[in-house]
Amino acid sequence: MNLLGKREPGIYGSKTLQEINDTLQLDAENLGVELRCFQSNHEGALIDAVQAAMGECDGLLINPGGFTHTSVALRDAISGVAIPTVEVHLSNVHARESFRHHSYIAPIAVGQISGFGAESYRLGLLALIRHLQQGKSE
Amino acid sequence: MNLLGKREPGIYGSKTLQEINDTLQLDAENLGVELRCFQSNHEGALIDAVQAAMGECDGLLINPGGFTHTSVALRDAISGVAIPTVEVHLSNVHARESFRHHSYIAPIAVGQISGFGAESYRLGLLALIRHLQQGKSE
Amino acid sequence: MNLLGKREPGIYGSKTLQEINDTLQLDAENLGVELRCFQSNHEGALIDAVQAAMGECDGLLINPGGFTHTSVALRDAISGVAIPTVEVHLSNVHARESFRHHSYIAPIAVGQISGFGAESYRLGLLALIRHLQQGKSE
Amino acid sequence: MNLLGKREPGIYGSKTLQEINDTLQLDAENLGVELRCFQSNHEGALIDAVQAAMGECDGLLINPGGFTHTSVALRDAISGVAIPTVEVHLSNVHARESFRHHSYIAPIAVGQISGFGAESYRLGLLALIRHLQQGKSE
Amino acid sequence: MNLLGKREPGIYGSKTLQEINDTLQLDAENLGVELRCFQSNHEGALIDAVQAAMGECDGLLINPGGFTHTSVALRDAISGVAIPTVEVHLSNVHARESFRHHSYIAPIAVGQISGFGAESYRLGLLALIRHLQQGKSE
Amino acid sequence: MNLLGKREPGIYGSKTLQEINDTLQLDAENLGVELRCFQSNHEGALIDAVQAAMGECDGLLINPGGFTHTSVALRDAISGVAIPTVEVHLSNVHARESFRHHSYIAPIAVGQISGFGAESYRLGLLALIRHLQQGKSE
Amino acid sequence: MNLLGKREPGIYGSKTLQEINDTLQLDAENLGVELRCFQSNHEGALIDAVQAAMGECDGLLINPGGFTHTSVALRDAISGVAIPTVEVHLSNVHARESFRHHSYIAPIAVGQISGFGAESYRLGLLALIRHLQQGKSE
Amino acid sequence: MNLLGKREPGIYGSKTLQEINDTLQLDAENLGVELRCFQSNHEGALIDAVQAAMGECDGLLINPGGFTHTSVALRDAISGVAIPTVEVHLSNVHARESFRHHSYIAPIAVGQISGFGAESYRLGLLALIRHLQQGKSE
Amino acid sequence: MNLLGKREPGIYGSKTLQEINDTLQLDAENLGVELRCFQSNHEGALIDAVQAAMGECDGLLINPGGFTHTSVALRDAISGVAIPTVEVHLSNVHARESFRHHSYIAPIAVGQISGFGAESYRLGLLALIRHLQQGKSE
Amino acid sequence: MNLLGKREPGIYGSKTLQEINDTLQLDAENLGVELRCFQSNHEGALIDAVQAAMGECDGLLINPGGFTHTSVALRDAISGVAIPTVEVHLSNVHARESFRHHSYIAPIAVGQISGFGAESYRLGLLALIRHLQQGKSE
Amino acid sequence: MNLLGKREPGIYGSKTLQEINDTLQLDAENLGVELRCFQSNHEGALIDAVQAAMGECDGLLINPGGFTHTSVALRDAISGVAIPTVEVHLSNVHARESFRHHSYIAPIAVGQISGFGAESYRLGLLALIRHLQQGKSE
Amino acid sequence: MNLLGKREPGIYGSKTLQEINDTLQLDAENLGVELRCFQSNHEGALIDAVQAAMGECDGLLINPGGFTHTSVALRDAISGVAIPTVEVHLSNVHARESFRHHSYIAPIAVGQISGFGAESYRLGLLALIRHLQQGKSE
Repeated sequence: MNLLGKREPGIYGSKTLQEINDTLQLDAENLGVELRCFQSNHEGALIDAVQAAMGECDGLLINPGGFTHTSVALRDAISGVAIPTVEVHLSNVHARESFRHHSYIAPIAVGQISGFGAESYRLGLLALIRHLQQGKSE
Repeated sequence: MNLLGKREPGIYGSKTLQEINDTLQLDAENLGVELRCFQSNHEGALIDAVQAAMGECDGLLINPGGFTHTSVALRDAISGVAIPTVEVHLSNVHARESFRHHSYIAPIAVGQISGFGAESYRLGLLALIRHLQQGKSE
Repeated sequence: MNLLGKREPGIYGSKTLQEINDTLQLDAENLGVELRCFQSNHEGALIDAVQAAMGECDGLLINPGGFTHTSVALRDAISGVAIPTVEVHLSNVHARESFRHHSYIAPIAVGQISGFGAESYRLGLLALIRHLQQGKSE
Repeated sequence: MNLLGKREPGIYGSKTLQEINDTLQLDAENLGVELRCFQSNHEGALIDAVQAAMGECDGLLINPGGFTHTSVALRDAISGVAIPTVEVHLSNVHARESFRHHSYIAPIAVGQISGFGAESYRLGLLALIRHLQQGKSE
Repeated sequence: MNLLGKREPGIYGSKTLQEINDTLQLDAENLGVELRCFQSNHEGALIDAVQAAMGECDGLLINPGGFTHTSVALRDAISGVAIPTVEVHLSNVHARESFRHHSYIAPIAVGQISGFGAESYRLGLLALIRHLQQGKSE
Repeated sequence: MNLLGKREPGIYGSKTLQEINDTLQLDAENLGVELRCFQSNHEGALIDAVQAAMGECDGLLINPGGFTHTSVALRDAISGVAIPTVEVHLSNVHARESFRHHSYIAPIAVGQISGFGAESYRLGLLALIRHLQQGKSE
Repeated sequence: MNLLGKREPGIYGSKTLQEINDTLQLDAENLGVELRCFQSNHEGALIDAVQAAMGECDGLLINPGGFTHTSVALRDAISGVAIPTVEVHLSNVHARESFRHHSYIAPIAVGQISGFGAESYRLGLLALIRHLQQGKSE
Repeated sequence: MNLLGKREPGIYGSKTLQEINDTLQLDAENLGVELRCFQSNHEGALIDAVQAAMGECDGLLINPGGFTHTSVALRDAISGVAIPTVEVHLSNVHARESFRHHSYIAPIAVGQISGFGAESYRLGLLALIRHLQQGKSE
Repeated sequence: MNLLGKREPGIYGSKTLQEINDTLQLDAENLGVELRCFQSNHEGALIDAVQAAMGECDGLLINPGGFTHTSVALRDAISGVAIPTVEVHLSNVHARESFRHHSYIAPIAVGQISGFGAESYRLGLLALIRHLQQGKSE
Repeated sequence: MNLLGKREPGIYGSKTLQEINDTLQLDAENLGVELRCFQSNHEGALIDAVQAAMGECDGLLINPGGFTHTSVALRDAISGVAIPTVEVHLSNVHARESFRHHSYIAPIAVGQISGFGAESYRLGLLALIRHLQQGKSE
Repeated sequence: MNLLGKREPGIYGSKTLQEINDTLQLDAENLGVELRCFQSNHEGALIDAVQAAMGECDGLLINPGGFTHTSVALRDAISGVAIPTVEVHLSNVHARESFRHHSYIAPIAVGQISGFGAESYRLGLLALIRHLQQGKSE
Repeated sequence: MNLLGKREPGIYGSKTLQEINDTLQLDAENLGVELRCFQSNHEGALIDAVQAAMGECDGLLINPGGFTHTSVALRDAISGVAIPTVEVHLSNVHARESFRHHSYIAPIAVGQISGFGAESYRLGLLALIRHLQQGKSE
């Protein structure tokens, strides 16, 4: 995701990942929560990060990118740590190639938000926090 | 949807549709937008309402319920009026029966939000308004 | 269903819907139960009727006709009111076109009876009453 | 269909439904037949109309729109009244999304005409009349 | 089927096969028909029994159990003797694993009844007798 | 197609191909257009003819017969010459074997007409001419 | 297969299994080979017979009936004894229900003959003998 | 088929097409029937030959080769002339690639024989003649 | 399975079933458990044996052979007696034909072991005993 | 392929088939090999040419066009002559309609090259020659 | 896999990966073999380890976790080093989601063991050693 | 890929990856272009490398190995940097297991070359350079 802003703005919007992270940090401050950002092209590094979150984080906000549709290992990691997770996508995955309609992550997540560009992250953060505040089990 | 709050709270959460509407109206006021609520069990009535929105509304926030997965007619109506539409679901449709994973509406919507109970509507309203403010074409 | 008796007697038998209703009313009287009949070509009207039955009826006897195979909304309505439901069909749906072999209603019903013409209704009424009398949860 | 002419002219052509109806009425007069027009977004209302046509009409000219691909109930209604039916589509359904390639109506219709815009209706009327004149059973 | 009553009462109900047979015999007496019961775990023995019924029995009431979904040979036997057959199931097969939704027997049977526990047999007997009395060909 | 009239009149109607051609020539004269007829059992000959039409013909009226469902080469030829094409069928292909429901030609044609016997050709000619007169791009 | 001649002569022809066996015995004598006939409705008995043929028979002529389409065990038995096998069918299985188009036996047989009624057996015997005479490995 | 004998003898056997034809002619003489042989790599030429056989031949013996699995046009030609047809294959098509398991021809043929090398033709000729002699309609 | 050792040693290994049974009996003695061996080509006999094991055996070690992939009845029998079951295969079923990749038994078994020849049985016995000793519910 | 250069240059590039052939002849001369060009819209003519190449050519360079996806007969011809074959495509078939992703030819070819316009032919010629020079069996 | 023991003990059992490794080391000592343990969430690291094993290890015991169902690269690595491999799973993959029923590894492994919790590893080690001792090629 | 030359020479040819790289460097020098080689078993490292190429390289020559068939993330990376990419394979993927027939990369690449062993790389380099020289957009 580290080319965001440069690549295919028609599909992914024009904000860079850094701008999204900065906006999310601001939102997090306003909402009184601590936010840690992590990005990697390595599925294994994402799994490591998910596992490292156990006991450290109350919730996960994840844009699994291409791994959404292919990674059973990432699904098992999230399912294994049992931390409430919200899945977000910049683009509307349901309006793209059919192989993007299926998510291995969504069935074990609290919910999924897709299609609102950088706003997907902000909505996802809001959704995650409200979910945790309501102590509403999935 | 008019039995919300009574039926299957494990799946759909415990808020009634009226409570959701009231909360949405409050949100709308705070966000400075006008909101009209419509509910029907009749696919045809929903289509009529969508068509009546043409020239009247800037955006559509829709929970198509069971019609999500079966109604080409509703899709064609939304596609026909060309009003930016956000699809929301109370439950996480991707974690339920496989026939709920496919949406006829999502491919022609701005985006889809599912799984956050009554919050799905609030997030959807927020998403729709921000989408319209940014004049960001889908 | 309001053309019953006139149309395709080879498939649906020669009794009219009125005759079936009359026979069912007689059966109901003999069995000491109250029976209300409702017929509509409108999926939405059927959903309204199902929801109106909540708190009013102990059981539902339904021939969903063509909606059997296409209506998730009707399924959700029946599932939502949580009233024991018996699904009946005049013709043997399993012996007809393959798209008639799948029912959205059957998986959430007590059971399914198909193929006995007007008798399907009478058997269904009997099945429903016995199910309710035995307080046997599905 | 009541937004025809306003919506998506690229797909559906630029004539309004009223213009199409007027043209069809003219054609009907020239061909010496009586034509009744009916339009609804309600599947149930279409089914009611089909059933009401029994004993009243010699043929049916129908553009089932989105119901083409989803309505077993409409199919059963047409099959039930056993009136020769011609299915027409403004757009070329075979050149659009794959879910539009299948029709529940076509297998029980005399024939199908698609892709000629408003002309599809006129060709369909002509086809229906000639079919009836030749007393050619399907 | 000879473990009925002991095994998985949640799925199959708590009546033993003997109790069901006794109840059916009583029903048969009341209805003035003769009933012969046969049970086997052997597909071939069931086929032998079906063939032996030719010229001996007016109707067949069968719960094909697991063979419902796998036995073309049983289907061919029933189809070969051309005796009107009613298929019954204790559990609601349409609410269980997807491989139980398809029946090789149902398409050549008069009809199918499933989901009413031991009552499925009684309803099936009633259905069969009424079918035979009406001389109603399938 | 050169056995038309002799073979399977139940499916294809009783007119011979020559009679259809004659009628079409008459129609063409009345409509003020020139019509050339070509028939072959050879897919390659049909492709040759399509390519030879480039620069010679304003439109193509084609009944691809069995090649409808199997010939990518014919599709590519029509697509290559970019001449507006109308696909017609004597029988209602949508009411026959499922392998006849898919057409390789229709997605690149202006439209498809099927089910009206010899009239399919006449309607197709009319459709093609009106399409060309309106200069309406597909 | 022991009802042959009585059941469904339209599909299976009118010769009884005994007549077929007699004819085959005559053919075998004329061809100078010894023939043993075995029939059972029990898949297990057929498997036993196949295994008993090892070291006893040079070839197998089998009409697996309904087991053709469902029995991996029979396939494994034939494959296990490694005796050249010819599969025959009275009816043309490729012209019947689609589940009859697939054979578990054919891929491990020398060849398959279907559709010629009682002649299928005679042709199969001839084919088997010629195959064995030519010592032609499959 | 004109390379038979040279190519892939492991699959197709070592007899040339000419040898097969000669053997068939001998068989035909012995059986008192007249046989005409035709071979072409051109699907259209095969279709022409089938159509030319109408009124000339009492039966067709055909090895459709690769066209077996792809040619709807050839199927329609055979179906159109309504001459009893026997389909033969040198190799056991059911033991080869899965795309060879389906035949467009078999469902409209009297029967199919595959897997016996050159003998398939001889068996097919025998099968065809016996079929014609018995005047047994398929 | 009673041809083991003779047939297809490349696939199934060279030990006879008797040798496997003897080895298993030795293993059982060493492990201090009683072992009963049963073999049949009859699905019904296997089902009878499974049902007879209820109340007699603490665990089942089964190589369902070809029935693995086809027998719902065997699955229902094992599921009905609710005895912990271990499924073993001599060959690696996942490396053979695709129809061998699916097992009706595995989803209701404790586990599955395949591919180790005669050792599969020994490993299965060990696995079953350890499972029972740990009182580990599946 | 004889309209190349005129049709759809966006997909197929702007060189004519003649220009491609000329370039290929030049390449062949430079590489010291003899090249014969053949083009036909007739599948049968292509098969004839393939068979005629046996004993005449050391390798085949083929662009099967639409036949790539539909012709088992062409595959069998190439497989029959056993001449090393390279399959080329002007356009990137994997980026076009899904029915173009499958090739009947590729599995029996040395390799496949697609997407480089006229260069695909040149690369294919180079690939073929190097393959032949290395005597590298596929 | 490094969260084993903490996560989802219902599915994966309660032993930690370290305990499993310790037990395996003990088993290895008792069996007189050397064992090296490696764990990573990184598919690439697993592939590196597999390749590093070439010339170093006589066998591989692998629990590919989520990569079982998605990694062609891991399969190719194992296939490339050609070291006998045994695939093990803690849980019974055949009793879980359908996407876990398929393994890319099993078809190229000696065998597969699943469902016995930590014992799966011990059984797998035993199976691997016996396989290597018998020098039994897969 | 770093075991090339040692593993499975029958499938992948006998050249080592280093030899291929050396040959490619020579080709690159002769063609006047600069070439950088990168190899990794880590999908993430490949993605990093693709992204690092943005602004640095004019084209990408990639053999995605097993990731070809499974990596949406790699596809998205290549699509994101929008650098013309040529996909090459040592073996003919279309002649191997069916899961190798689909490529996630090919639809967004310029073209694909497979089956020519080490020559695939050289042809791919040539194809890429010519593509870049012609400034021909895909």
